[in-house]
Amino acid sequence: MYLTMNRFKVVPDKTQAFEDLWKMRDSHLKSVPGFRAFHLLKGENHGDHVLYASHTIWEDESSFRDWTKSEAFRMAHKGAKSSGDMYLAAPDLEIFEAVQVLE
Amino acid sequence: MYLTMNRFKVVPDKTQAFEDLWKMRDSHLKSVPGFRAFHLLKGENHGDHVLYASHTIWEDESSFRDWTKSEAFRMAHKGAKSSGDMYLAAPDLEIFEAVQVLE
Repeated sequence: MYLTMNRFKVVPDKTQAFEDLWKMRDSHLKSVPGFRAFHLLKGENHGDHVLYASHTIWEDESSFRDWTKSEAFRMAHKGAKSSGDMYLAAPDLEIFEAVQVLE
Repeated sequence: MYLTMNRFKVVPDKTQAFEDLWKMRDSHLKSVPGFRAFHLLKGENHGDHVLYASHTIWEDESSFRDWTKSEAFRMAHKGAKSSGDMYLAAPDLEIFEAVQVLE
């Protein structure tokens, strides 16, 4: 499993707007080679922010790297800057590879 | 998707020992009602630590809560204290629920 998680600290009174933004946009992910699954995850409320994370599973690292250089990536992120007031801080990308699996 | 992730900051020269500990122990998870899938994930090297995360998917919140009160949970964690020198800090549990899915 190759997993990319982008962590977002969302201002508490902007959570609905944040979720709506993700629901309304077309991520173009389904047509991306090597894309496996996407979840938008909601975490805990820390008082000054609510933690969210995009959770995207890829076939392998090169599928993810190719996507970041693609037109699909550019299209999916074109509205990102205008929603900056939703966040307490810049998003934080974390990348993981599975070293053990139990299913 | 109900996801529990326990984040571990592992001292760089203890990563092999940390991975071996997870490989060798019997987590008893497969017999736990509501358990879906477990991955041990390796993240980036931050210099003073390597980020790891246990990544466990549950049918729902009550499946996870019931597990934390079970004998299976107690058995899976009985060696945890003796491996304290592997970590830069205490593990940090984060819980997420999916608010959007694309598969």
